[in-house]
Amino acid sequence: MTNLTRESLAARDAADPLRRKRDEFDVPEGVIYLDGNSLGALPRAVPARIKHVIEQEWGEGLIRSWNRAKWMELPGRIGAKIAPLVGARADEVIACDSTSVNLYKVITAALRLNPGRRVILSEHANFPTDLYIAQGAMGLIDKGHELKLVEGAEIADAIDDRTALVMLTHIDFKSGRIHDMRAITAKAHEKGALVIWDLAHSAGALQVELDACNADFAIGCGYKYLNGGPGAPAFVFIRKDLQEKVQPALSGWIGHKRPFDFITQYEPGPGMHRMLVGTPPILAMSALDTALDVWRDVDMKVLRAKSLDMGTVFSRLLVERCAGMNMVNITPPDDAIRGSQVSVSHPESYAIMQELVARGVIGDFRAPDCMRFGFTPLYLRFTDLWDAVEILRDIVATGAWDKPAYKVRAAIT
Amino acid sequence: MTNLTRESLAARDAADPLRRKRDEFDVPEGVIYLDGNSLGALPRAVPARIKHVIEQEWGEGLIRSWNRAKWMELPGRIGAKIAPLVGARADEVIACDSTSVNLYKVITAALRLNPGRRVILSEHANFPTDLYIAQGAMGLIDKGHELKLVEGAEIADAIDDRTALVMLTHIDFKSGRIHDMRAITAKAHEKGALVIWDLAHSAGALQVELDACNADFAIGCGYKYLNGGPGAPAFVFIRKDLQEKVQPALSGWIGHKRPFDFITQYEPGPGMHRMLVGTPPILAMSALDTALDVWRDVDMKVLRAKSLDMGTVFSRLLVERCAGMNMVNITPPDDAIRGSQVSVSHPESYAIMQELVARGVIGDFRAPDCMRFGFTPLYLRFTDLWDAVEILRDIVATGAWDKPAYKVRAAIT
Repeated sequence: MTNLTRESLAARDAADPLRRKRDEFDVPEGVIYLDGNSLGALPRAVPARIKHVIEQEWGEGLIRSWNRAKWMELPGRIGAKIAPLVGARADEVIACDSTSVNLYKVITAALRLNPGRRVILSEHANFPTDLYIAQGAMGLIDKGHELKLVEGAEIADAIDDRTALVMLTHIDFKSGRIHDMRAITAKAHEKGALVIWDLAHSAGALQVELDACNADFAIGCGYKYLNGGPGAPAFVFIRKDLQEKVQPALSGWIGHKRPFDFITQYEPGPGMHRMLVGTPPILAMSALDTALDVWRDVDMKVLRAKSLDMGTVFSRLLVERCAGMNMVNITPPDDAIRGSQVSVSHPESYAIMQELVARGVIGDFRAPDCMRFGFTPLYLRFTDLWDAVEILRDIVATGAWDKPAYKVRAAIT
Repeated sequence: MTNLTRESLAARDAADPLRRKRDEFDVPEGVIYLDGNSLGALPRAVPARIKHVIEQEWGEGLIRSWNRAKWMELPGRIGAKIAPLVGARADEVIACDSTSVNLYKVITAALRLNPGRRVILSEHANFPTDLYIAQGAMGLIDKGHELKLVEGAEIADAIDDRTALVMLTHIDFKSGRIHDMRAITAKAHEKGALVIWDLAHSAGALQVELDACNADFAIGCGYKYLNGGPGAPAFVFIRKDLQEKVQPALSGWIGHKRPFDFITQYEPGPGMHRMLVGTPPILAMSALDTALDVWRDVDMKVLRAKSLDMGTVFSRLLVERCAGMNMVNITPPDDAIRGSQVSVSHPESYAIMQELVARGVIGDFRAPDCMRFGFTPLYLRFTDLWDAVEILRDIVATGAWDKPAYKVRAAIT
């Protein structure tokens, strides 16, 4: 295998069936954006939509827009757009609140569906908010639940007849490793446990198969690969046959069966609507609604193939161009268990990432020593990867990261 | 007292110290907007702010804007802007999530602070979502809590040594009646109970005195009198000395003490920051942030005086211009206990309101028979009230509400 060249990567770009999708995004000049897994780039159609929502729907329509502009339909309409990306039926997904709040909803729902058991099983490396939210729910319920954390590889074996709930992030936020959704869900069901899948790094990164895997619950994020904007509404999935069994802990009026009857007793609305709580955030919902339209003509097999190619290319470039630089690729090399990112550990990752960002290569840092590079096939080019690695190589080779300003750590989200 | 005339009201407008504030809003031509208590009008500065946030902060800045544009500071900055309107310290208020979700946070916090008691006391007429959220929390906690509902006038007497929590909406959404925050809070404390005040119809309608009344918890709405846009973020207040005692049930990473350390154990952040859960919705937060700037030069005494004048004028016009039309003003006549609205019952309220809206007079309908007219002193004129009542009179006098299209009820939010 001959080494990669910029020319060979330019040829891949020219042959890329997704190359025109980049035109649907506003990617700034001079930026190589490898952080779409933290905040997706701006879809070009969003500013006009939001201008319309603000000036016409809110400004002119005022309260009338709840009916005229069908604002109340947004959570379900957005859910139906997300559903095919995660392998769900249109009536199994709804958009609302934040990922963390939605996780609370499904954790509390799941625990009530499995009242005789006390163990929530997850992994040490799960995204912290998932663990925090479980701790908060357990603390309130106060019935002796235990959050049992094991290594990712030990999850399936750790499921037993004490397990109420298995709660996992499908693709690890740091290493990019993919859990086997089908096998773990099957094992959980065999042992009488329910499963919640956090799709934060999956939705829009690859074809998820919630229904095919018989998943019980899932939640996910609107602002990463779905490009809904900073703090975009999140989504929640409940398998069809479970929906009517769910008693919402967050039982707000928008999730009521008849919200405008103003009766004093809560009655859950039909299906996923019971997952709604307060008044939907219309500006944020509208941005996500329009952002999702870029998926209309995307073949997820093509997307996944490009995503994996990008991971392979980036990993090869690290080997071919950055050998001996003390960088360790911590991403699984196996395509089948690798998400849409490459993560690299280096003792000076924090400082190196600062210098990368200063030079227009935007990835992010994850404590303690991880540089994370996300690949968003809709708007990233193979030549971007070449250019990014060349800049990374220069920074490490020249020690350009060694600047006083980079000694003080500030959070990068 | 001579009857009101349009000329006398035009004179009031000319002398109105708040008359220039209307220029800071986009109120559509041909509309008399009496529903700012459901969705506030668009502040003129909002579209440019949101354009900047979308195109520059999100589009150009991308993930870097979490630091550069100080996105993470928005919840606290907005809280500090709301604080003076509700009589709180800047570090006692934070903006986040929806009103309903925030209510869940403080209900669960309060119940944990009063673990030996089982009664949540509220009133039948409380806004339904408040009751629903309490029911949801009680159902999850499953320790025999009881939601005791009494008539509004009986609240103080119903507080006893079984009462864990008194939960009230300060200004009744339907009748506009104001609860005595000081007296009820004092009575609750005397009996060892905590109090949550829902300020949905208070914040921005009159000067609230949370700290002066020694209130424990409060929540409120960003999209009514605060004009933050449809589904704007809500806010939450916890009195300073209680904050560190609160164990959040919704314990998300943004409320963590060190969110970017990514440790596995939740530790509540300092003060109000523990009320944050997921990633803040930046578009919605930015709209609210800018909307709140209209309050900079508003004297709340002047605002309240105009609001009460408007209620008095509207009520007088109903008497002087609409006598014998079967409309009953259900709003308290006493200034001291009347919010910023007048509510009118009539058997055909639903149909009448439809025709009012068709003629550009926008109020709203609340089941079963209430027409609700809200007064927003920042952008409403006394002559608007005259014109609205004349149109109302014509509709009722001519029976113009009696149209087939108005027989079918659709929700107006």
